[in-house]
Amino acid sequence: MQPVNIGIIGLGNVGSGALTILTENASQIAAKLGFPLHVAAVCSRHVASAKLPAGLEGALKTADWREVVNHPDIHIVAELIGGTGVAREIIEASAACGKSVVTANKELMALHGAELWDQAIAARINIAMEASVAGGIPIHTVLREGISGDRITTLYGILNGTCNFILTEIEQRGADFGHVLAEAQAAGYAEADPSADVDGFDARSKLAILSALAFGERIVPSDIYTEGIRRISPIDFEYAHMLDHTIRLVCAARQTPKGLLLSVRPSLLPRSTILASVRGAYNAAWVRGKYGADTFYYGRGAGPLPTGVAVVSDLMRVAREIRSGSPERVSPFAHARLGEYKPLPIALNHSAYYLRFRVKDRPGIIASLAAALSAEKISLDAVLQLPQPNADDLPFVITVAPTTEQSIQDALQRMAGMDFLVEPPLALPMEGSL
Amino acid sequence: MQPVNIGIIGLGNVGSGALTILTENASQIAAKLGFPLHVAAVCSRHVASAKLPAGLEGALKTADWREVVNHPDIHIVAELIGGTGVAREIIEASAACGKSVVTANKELMALHGAELWDQAIAARINIAMEASVAGGIPIHTVLREGISGDRITTLYGILNGTCNFILTEIEQRGADFGHVLAEAQAAGYAEADPSADVDGFDARSKLAILSALAFGERIVPSDIYTEGIRRISPIDFEYAHMLDHTIRLVCAARQTPKGLLLSVRPSLLPRSTILASVRGAYNAAWVRGKYGADTFYYGRGAGPLPTGVAVVSDLMRVAREIRSGSPERVSPFAHARLGEYKPLPIALNHSAYYLRFRVKDRPGIIASLAAALSAEKISLDAVLQLPQPNADDLPFVITVAPTTEQSIQDALQRMAGMDFLVEPPLALPMEGSL
Repeated sequence: MQPVNIGIIGLGNVGSGALTILTENASQIAAKLGFPLHVAAVCSRHVASAKLPAGLEGALKTADWREVVNHPDIHIVAELIGGTGVAREIIEASAACGKSVVTANKELMALHGAELWDQAIAARINIAMEASVAGGIPIHTVLREGISGDRITTLYGILNGTCNFILTEIEQRGADFGHVLAEAQAAGYAEADPSADVDGFDARSKLAILSALAFGERIVPSDIYTEGIRRISPIDFEYAHMLDHTIRLVCAARQTPKGLLLSVRPSLLPRSTILASVRGAYNAAWVRGKYGADTFYYGRGAGPLPTGVAVVSDLMRVAREIRSGSPERVSPFAHARLGEYKPLPIALNHSAYYLRFRVKDRPGIIASLAAALSAEKISLDAVLQLPQPNADDLPFVITVAPTTEQSIQDALQRMAGMDFLVEPPLALPMEGSL
Repeated sequence: MQPVNIGIIGLGNVGSGALTILTENASQIAAKLGFPLHVAAVCSRHVASAKLPAGLEGALKTADWREVVNHPDIHIVAELIGGTGVAREIIEASAACGKSVVTANKELMALHGAELWDQAIAARINIAMEASVAGGIPIHTVLREGISGDRITTLYGILNGTCNFILTEIEQRGADFGHVLAEAQAAGYAEADPSADVDGFDARSKLAILSALAFGERIVPSDIYTEGIRRISPIDFEYAHMLDHTIRLVCAARQTPKGLLLSVRPSLLPRSTILASVRGAYNAAWVRGKYGADTFYYGRGAGPLPTGVAVVSDLMRVAREIRSGSPERVSPFAHARLGEYKPLPIALNHSAYYLRFRVKDRPGIIASLAAALSAEKISLDAVLQLPQPNADDLPFVITVAPTTEQSIQDALQRMAGMDFLVEPPLALPMEGSL
């Protein structure tokens, strides 16, 4: 059988993982498809010095992506360079010459996925992007096909492996955020500039893509309230455990009668929930549908080979499509009725909250804080204080009954001038609906 | 846009669940597809008295499935009656007139999936069968597309919700198997004749399908060593917990250098594993691939609406195909090189084992049992005995280091004549590779 020809652009982690699988696993891939996938071109700025797996002797090697996109024998282009500049040019140029694209680019698809899909539909090409979110977990396939008949109401994700690794280490070893981060950087699990991970921006891009797919709405990162994990300390896990909860960087997209509540923020999860059992650098997604109830998906969030599986599986799907003829397409980012799932301001979030204070000890503190909460009609649930050595920096916790984020922010505003506070209070939602 | 027309045969649990979703969620389904799915016919022996959802006023209602299959306007036939007789006729008749089929029929697909797929490929039709295994979990889609680029080495499943419910109740409440089964029957969670569930046959059919899909091999239920849960008692959970394990009915398909080891049997799982966290009537699958490492999938195993989501999602996929033109197909049941994944006898299984004895107390028991194990070169690991009130029926446990099933069976044979045994020993594998 004639092969379907692939051009790989980008030979970093993901590109080299995909190439390994395409060459090593070629016979099983061909057996599943009924025809081979053939790597006809590889492109990288460093292609001359790149160490390529055996079997690519005949492939075009180039540093110019246009040679790949314009090559008459190449049927599918894999854009694996990342970023939002050249990567976008590659996808648009591929669409312009009628070639489908497989991409691992979360940043680009989160920011411009809807526009790129509009172009793809006009050009009758596919943009397959399984690898852009949660590398080893086939969550795109699940949302696009596996449970496409359902009407999704809620999606929770743990989508940043670095944050989950850091939080798990803080939890298990009682080590400080800064200490664990430095270790993770030394071991190569975290970048030298850790902001994209620990401030939640990476997870935000992934949630933008997944919530767009789940709800068919044009959701972009700026629609998502985002807060990182820098303020989470070992004492927060001690208090969370007293409440039989743990803390994770939770990506949440929830349908409400008024629209969608979207957030990436550290949150308390009941320890009995399956999402709370996700430890270390793993990723997970938890989906609730109106009909199918709860499903849960778990696996490696990154790594050359798990992400390579996503790329290769997408290549196989697109190759099958090329053989069967181009189907009619609907944008996965924009099939909802306009505004059906409008993103809402986070002020409308409604949940229980965990409030952690650090104070200089003196009489009347609880009374002052309770008065601020009471003024916003917020009901106290629990007050927790573990014995502490330092009366000048006492951490303690108040949990409150379900209320709105707006009320919490207003209460925090009332507390802003209280001179016994060592730092502004930390407010984390407690997820009860899992 | 012109609709794709569906004929639903069977209005039991699954059929009525699918109909509810097809009618209630019609607008979102049409938005995702770009065209509507239209229920053009429903068929049931009791169609005259069936309570149908609104929106089916114009549909053909018939008690004769041939009217549906032969109806010129119907594009896809949903076979939702179950069983291996008429259901097979429906699928073969549909193939004969070039119509793709969606089925929820685990028994038929487990027994005859490979032959039916050979017919389907010759007829250029699709047989979509997501609903046949683990209702709400889109595990077929995951294996067929989401991680199709990977080379799967191991698949573990918890695939029978009734057994998992019963085991969880025994574990949590310390109630006997018979007592919990009677409760489950009264509540409608278990059938009046519970054998298909509690003796492992239902799970075996599901594992036959999943392992065929995962390995591309013609696997049938009789290839799978099967043992039910009737002998599991509260004391087994007490001992398992002492070993930091739990007990589940584990469906396992593992590649070894010689072939595939396939089994459905109660097994000890380390409590720290995510598979051990599956409680109650839920189902789960845990997959290990050579490249993508471990992924895990969890959800409702049954129920009209979760299974209905699987049926409707399959209908959507097949409808998209009908619009884009019939693709080339490869049998999902038989794409491996012949014999690449040959099923092996269970005697070759290699693992640690949990051996639970019930004995009349007297001196020398441990010595006799240890001698029988030693004669088969099996090394003892732990000997556990909780205090017990009844010296005439003392349960105690020996765990042994990894050995073969053959050696365990030979040792049990040596023990057969020992007159202090109240019943034959119970031998359960301890899964360590999760």
